[in-house]
Amino acid sequence: MKVSLNQTVESLTGAQNILIIAHKDPDGDTVGAAFALYYALRSLDKHVRIACHDPIPEKYDAITSGYTKEDFTPEFVIAVDVADIQLFGESLKQYEDKVDLCIDHHVSNKLYASQTYLSTSAAATCEALYELLIRMNVKIDKKIADCLYTGIVTDTGCFKFTSTTANTHIVAARLFECGANYDMINREMFDNKSKSRLLLESMVLKAIEFYFGDRCALIVITKEMVDKTGADQTVFDGISGVTKQIEGVDVGITIRQVQGSEYRVSFRTSERVSAFELAAAFDGGGHVRAAGCIINGEILEVKEKLLEKTGEKLKPYLK
Amino acid sequence: MKVSLNQTVESLTGAQNILIIAHKDPDGDTVGAAFALYYALRSLDKHVRIACHDPIPEKYDAITSGYTKEDFTPEFVIAVDVADIQLFGESLKQYEDKVDLCIDHHVSNKLYASQTYLSTSAAATCEALYELLIRMNVKIDKKIADCLYTGIVTDTGCFKFTSTTANTHIVAARLFECGANYDMINREMFDNKSKSRLLLESMVLKAIEFYFGDRCALIVITKEMVDKTGADQTVFDGISGVTKQIEGVDVGITIRQVQGSEYRVSFRTSERVSAFELAAAFDGGGHVRAAGCIINGEILEVKEKLLEKTGEKLKPYLK
Repeated sequence: MKVSLNQTVESLTGAQNILIIAHKDPDGDTVGAAFALYYALRSLDKHVRIACHDPIPEKYDAITSGYTKEDFTPEFVIAVDVADIQLFGESLKQYEDKVDLCIDHHVSNKLYASQTYLSTSAAATCEALYELLIRMNVKIDKKIADCLYTGIVTDTGCFKFTSTTANTHIVAARLFECGANYDMINREMFDNKSKSRLLLESMVLKAIEFYFGDRCALIVITKEMVDKTGADQTVFDGISGVTKQIEGVDVGITIRQVQGSEYRVSFRTSERVSAFELAAAFDGGGHVRAAGCIINGEILEVKEKLLEKTGEKLKPYLK
Repeated sequence: MKVSLNQTVESLTGAQNILIIAHKDPDGDTVGAAFALYYALRSLDKHVRIACHDPIPEKYDAITSGYTKEDFTPEFVIAVDVADIQLFGESLKQYEDKVDLCIDHHVSNKLYASQTYLSTSAAATCEALYELLIRMNVKIDKKIADCLYTGIVTDTGCFKFTSTTANTHIVAARLFECGANYDMINREMFDNKSKSRLLLESMVLKAIEFYFGDRCALIVITKEMVDKTGADQTVFDGISGVTKQIEGVDVGITIRQVQGSEYRVSFRTSERVSAFELAAAFDGGGHVRAAGCIINGEILEVKEKLLEKTGEKLKPYLK
């Protein structure tokens, strides 16, 4: 059931011994929202614990550093930025039908919780959460401001995505006034590339292939390339975004060799083509502009299949 | 002489037959400010013309498209975002001692104009100009909003640079409300890389040199490299930002061969080192985290000089 801001405030105020769930493969918005809510509820003297199927990546250290794990039996379960129970992950499966409140901004939210506060106009769950915390009379301290700002910048690509609104900027301004360490956060989130990442980028940029009159850009990242850079998995964060930055490109395809003949494929598309439909053609999924799938086969064969499907989608735009 | 906001409003209101000067190698802030002011003053039925030593790059087409060149003898000369008469360029040398009003945000402004409205707390000249236009009761239409938003995002790296303040976000919110086409602008400014730009980036990334225990990253871009990519001047936009993205780097230096033994140097620094001081040591100028200078000499000699000065600044942080 969807609930209003006031009802949500009431539920939160009445709750005690709270478990906050962040989604698996945690991103800045789910981490930011979980920890902002944690610090807020702790300031109201409630018992609070955070659960996430996967470890929280190191780059969020600054916002997770004030966390102390408490042992208690949860009486109230909140999921933040979790659109679907599929995103709980195996280790939190037990809570799938026990969520009292979900705070989210995804249009695709499955309304699996007893109460769902869904603000689809918010660019990030953290943007919606700011409003909520203000209504609860929580003092937005530096730490909470850092959490909320992290969620907002990561979910908007630093105010670039079309989900950004005037209100997103207003909230950012308020968080600046509360002392958000935006410089450190932006560097951690966007500008902290390792030397191996730079090397990989250099190789990737040099190896971009163009098809269909430059409307399609394709990148192949082999295990050999990655090994050469000495990088770990995090080196891939955002690398498929590279294809989206190229002038005139409608479909960006990044093919990454996982192992042997297993390839992970990312699609990034302009408003002309649905990335979701492309991925779905290969049993994958995702969003309209960003989606992915796994394909097995020899690389030339994988490329051919992908280009054939891409050609179909681009047909109306080719001269 | 520095003047107040009110005095500036008065000067602008009284002016007629106005020439607006943007700085050479025009960036988003000088272009955005020049055209925002042009549209604003035209809406007040004044005669206005814009002058810039270099052609305005194509990526600003959306904001320059409403411009009509008028022929008249200028009676009032305004420089926008121009910190120093050195930045007028050869073809506008005649105006160096004839500037009635300068509107700027650079700490390093040389106060060469009869009147200077200097708002050093503004992250961009366009941020300061917004305030000014509001005080002049100019209606901020979609076109003016696009101009001002362009200046703000380009001068703040899309709200990432430390010059960004709560007020920068507030102004951005107001510009959204005035209909700024932020999606198109952000794509044009940040995500529209030409194939030649990608090639140059690939070469640059491969050629990064590290000094002082990786605290300094240095890039040399020769004319030969640029010729190889077949790129024009706009290919350099933001390329010096690359050094700032590297983990652990406090000083990023980009040396670009202008011609023969003339090199344009950009400094990008962390909070530990002043880019402004580094540039000033070579008669350059700019901001605390981003500054630049011109050095003449053989490349090895230029590098040596730069590294010597950088080493002095980094000394306290070296083990």
